[in-house]
Amino acid sequence: MDNRRRKFWGWGWEDEGPTAEQQGKIADLLKERFALRSVDVRTPPRIEELSLPDCRITPPDSLASICSAAAYDRAGHTYGKSFRDVVRAFRRNYDHPPDLVAFPRDENQIIDLLDWCTRDGVVAIPYGGGSSVAGGIEPPADEYRPVVSIDLGGLDKVLEIDRVSRAARIQAGVYGPALEDQLRPHGYTLRHFPQSFEFSTLGGWIATRSGGHFATLYTHIDDFVESLRVITPTGIAESRRLPGSGAGPSPDRLFIGSEGILGIITEAWMRLQDRPRYRAAASVTFTSFQAGADAVRAIAQAGLYPSNCRLLDAGEAQIAGAGDGTRSVLLIAFESADHTLDAWMARAVECCRDHGGEVPQDAVKTVEKDEGARGGAAGAWRSSFVGAPYLRDALVAMGMISETFETAITWDRFPAFNAAVMGAAEKAVKEICGAGSVTCRFTHAYPDGPAPYYSIIAPSTPSDQLEQWSEIKAAASAAIIDNGGTITHHHAVGRDHRTWYDQQRPDVFARALSAAKRELDPAGILNPGVLLGD
Amino acid sequence: MDNRRRKFWGWGWEDEGPTAEQQGKIADLLKERFALRSVDVRTPPRIEELSLPDCRITPPDSLASICSAAAYDRAGHTYGKSFRDVVRAFRRNYDHPPDLVAFPRDENQIIDLLDWCTRDGVVAIPYGGGSSVAGGIEPPADEYRPVVSIDLGGLDKVLEIDRVSRAARIQAGVYGPALEDQLRPHGYTLRHFPQSFEFSTLGGWIATRSGGHFATLYTHIDDFVESLRVITPTGIAESRRLPGSGAGPSPDRLFIGSEGILGIITEAWMRLQDRPRYRAAASVTFTSFQAGADAVRAIAQAGLYPSNCRLLDAGEAQIAGAGDGTRSVLLIAFESADHTLDAWMARAVECCRDHGGEVPQDAVKTVEKDEGARGGAAGAWRSSFVGAPYLRDALVAMGMISETFETAITWDRFPAFNAAVMGAAEKAVKEICGAGSVTCRFTHAYPDGPAPYYSIIAPSTPSDQLEQWSEIKAAASAAIIDNGGTITHHHAVGRDHRTWYDQQRPDVFARALSAAKRELDPAGILNPGVLLGD
Repeated sequence: MDNRRRKFWGWGWEDEGPTAEQQGKIADLLKERFALRSVDVRTPPRIEELSLPDCRITPPDSLASICSAAAYDRAGHTYGKSFRDVVRAFRRNYDHPPDLVAFPRDENQIIDLLDWCTRDGVVAIPYGGGSSVAGGIEPPADEYRPVVSIDLGGLDKVLEIDRVSRAARIQAGVYGPALEDQLRPHGYTLRHFPQSFEFSTLGGWIATRSGGHFATLYTHIDDFVESLRVITPTGIAESRRLPGSGAGPSPDRLFIGSEGILGIITEAWMRLQDRPRYRAAASVTFTSFQAGADAVRAIAQAGLYPSNCRLLDAGEAQIAGAGDGTRSVLLIAFESADHTLDAWMARAVECCRDHGGEVPQDAVKTVEKDEGARGGAAGAWRSSFVGAPYLRDALVAMGMISETFETAITWDRFPAFNAAVMGAAEKAVKEICGAGSVTCRFTHAYPDGPAPYYSIIAPSTPSDQLEQWSEIKAAASAAIIDNGGTITHHHAVGRDHRTWYDQQRPDVFARALSAAKRELDPAGILNPGVLLGD
Repeated sequence: MDNRRRKFWGWGWEDEGPTAEQQGKIADLLKERFALRSVDVRTPPRIEELSLPDCRITPPDSLASICSAAAYDRAGHTYGKSFRDVVRAFRRNYDHPPDLVAFPRDENQIIDLLDWCTRDGVVAIPYGGGSSVAGGIEPPADEYRPVVSIDLGGLDKVLEIDRVSRAARIQAGVYGPALEDQLRPHGYTLRHFPQSFEFSTLGGWIATRSGGHFATLYTHIDDFVESLRVITPTGIAESRRLPGSGAGPSPDRLFIGSEGILGIITEAWMRLQDRPRYRAAASVTFTSFQAGADAVRAIAQAGLYPSNCRLLDAGEAQIAGAGDGTRSVLLIAFESADHTLDAWMARAVECCRDHGGEVPQDAVKTVEKDEGARGGAAGAWRSSFVGAPYLRDALVAMGMISETFETAITWDRFPAFNAAVMGAAEKAVKEICGAGSVTCRFTHAYPDGPAPYYSIIAPSTPSDQLEQWSEIKAAASAAIIDNGGTITHHHAVGRDHRTWYDQQRPDVFARALSAAKRELDPAGILNPGVLLGD
């Protein structure tokens, strides 16, 4: 990592994000867009302002040197990075920070930490990059036991590269950029680029079933896990490196998505990609979102496997600077380290035209360098994508509601589902905020359905920002669950999605998972309230 | 199913398999090949010859009409279809048949059966097509409780087809041909064609993580499961139909591969394929297996995703009639319902030539009909593939050892791994049988490694047929496990692979799975000895 310091209260580096001047311009835009009389820009919290409750525990001597009770560390590990988290930070609400933050540098220290927690009844919350948007890393408000947040950032190395099988053994605490930096000299890439890429870790991606770069085929991190090493309170689980296996239920699949309730992932063998050499990209516009959705379905069912296949509705396209707000935009790209992609793109473009897509001649670019095709709508969308979390924090400071939610649904149900979810969200936004926008894009697409991703921006009453969002979130989530979707496609469950996750997952499965947890974590120290429990 | 009757003692229909005349010719070939003085063709068992132990239980009145204690039913549900199973049948060893065979016609009867078994301490063994080659459906010899085999063949319908999402809700007891018959009129296919296709069921494929038609990308049935319905002794688990999800560990992945120890799969929503319209196929020869393996690796890492990519070593190619025994043969095919495949095949052929593959001009066929390209080496291989289980039974009758085993391994370790496994198997065959052949093919290929599949044919002492095979199997399995492979890529674990599976799976995972089983099946009635337990 850098010498720069991370914000303890929000996204990214302390010295990044919109400047005061930029914030003023954003405020002007908001005033115009939502007919607001004024927009106040509130000041983010400073550590000195916070009054954290006293730390209630003393670590064993052997662990003292890796444990911190510093206010910056405790405050920085209190919340994830959701809208709700940033609002609470602006409210200076740090009532439930972890008592300590531990920074282990090796597996033995992790084992010692879990032993200590088990022995003394201390809650252990595994912490990767802290980018959870689902309450996955916060000490529960109703938790009476002391809490230690275990920050895995010290386990940040690529340990081994197997060039023949194109795989690497990687420590789980490595952040996205540091991971890619270590692979690049060898000509490889993991090519897993969630929006949180800069401030999230391999272990966090695996524990939360992160969704990445590839819009089709290999959408979740799950697909790239060759084997896992997990430290549980009662033993270490290490699976074999296997390209495929049919020996019983997959051991890895139990831990992938377990969100820190079963153990701490310390290492994984990950399947790598050669760095792409060929790239073909196109921007296609549609008069309706559904027409674009039909084209995405055709492409997803054709066996073409584009790396990008992101459909933005008209509003989303406009916000991202990829359209004028009248048409939906489909960003489609193929990439390969092996072969040119003309045949692939030609057929994808045909699929788009079959469904009314307009493909201007200059909208198709085929290049021999990955970096070459980043202009136009795709480039605008990408830079907006990466900068979005900084912008979101600025919007929170201006008293706006700014948040996203996402799901997946089969194609047959998508039109009614989307109408119900958009309808519920728009109705709630209008009733609660008076104005606001709800937009939709597809982040990933499967042969049997899309993963729709919704973004909300709405003016709120600063004092009620949290409560207003809660109502909107509840309305949208109920619509998702009632209409057959999943409460999360790649944002994870955490604590915030429990109400709806509990309706979604089969009870029988929850009982099986609880039994597994009781077996591996008999003292119930690991991340209580996430996925399971009252 | 047909009006014809299944063999109770071996593979397939009673009226199929080699005729007496054909058996004579096979015997002559064997004599010549292994320098045998004579080959006796033993007579398969007849039901009247068997003395089954008495049935020890009476079902409740409400279940009496679906339970059979007929000798044909009990004998037919005593074994799977492995070499070991057929040898025991030839030995007339039916000491441990199920006490009863139940033929439920709906879920309520399955619930009633499991309730009865739980209440009365009766072991319940889920039975699909009975094609297990890993001891997955046999009553354990050391089981003191009575046993009922639950034959799911009555649940044989495609219940619902979703044309938009290209998926169908299908009952788990349907056999491969009946499943395809029900999908064909709608233009769809599951396109899952394990060697057992004719006599295995959807539920069996899911419970054992069956490997199917596609040699790359979507290799296991796992990939086609959209949602599952499972009856456990303590409740029904039904997952949502979702194209993708990140909500906790996948509920389906706990049941996929659970081999009947957690519950009985009754229905699944399965992702379908459009019937292929375009097909490109090629046969490529290599002077060495490793050169062929290098080509397969290049293709698997290129992102081309051929549907067939089966590499046969020289001996395997000769046995299958796809070569003269001097060269390895790679059968490669692409198929699509959507687009022509010239660009895909052209690049795959380049990958082959880059690694010394010889591709005669007439060996590449591109056709617009799926059925068109089945001649030549590929056609010979396919008909040999489907007929193999009948032939295997005939070889057993002639006192031969004839069996297969399979695994997966990463590319970096493949050369040493293959040498160790081939070496161990050949050494054991030579020491134990004096002569015999061990051959290898790849059934599936991944970016990070192949799934090698080994076939053994060797003359044995008929009285020691079983024991001799046990020794060979133990030697090969030890080599697989010691060299980092999986004890099964798609044949499942059952009871026969337990020794090596127990070394392979992480102990921590076994504890978690055991805990889940105790929770869902507290009486321990479901398929004891499979995957778990003493």
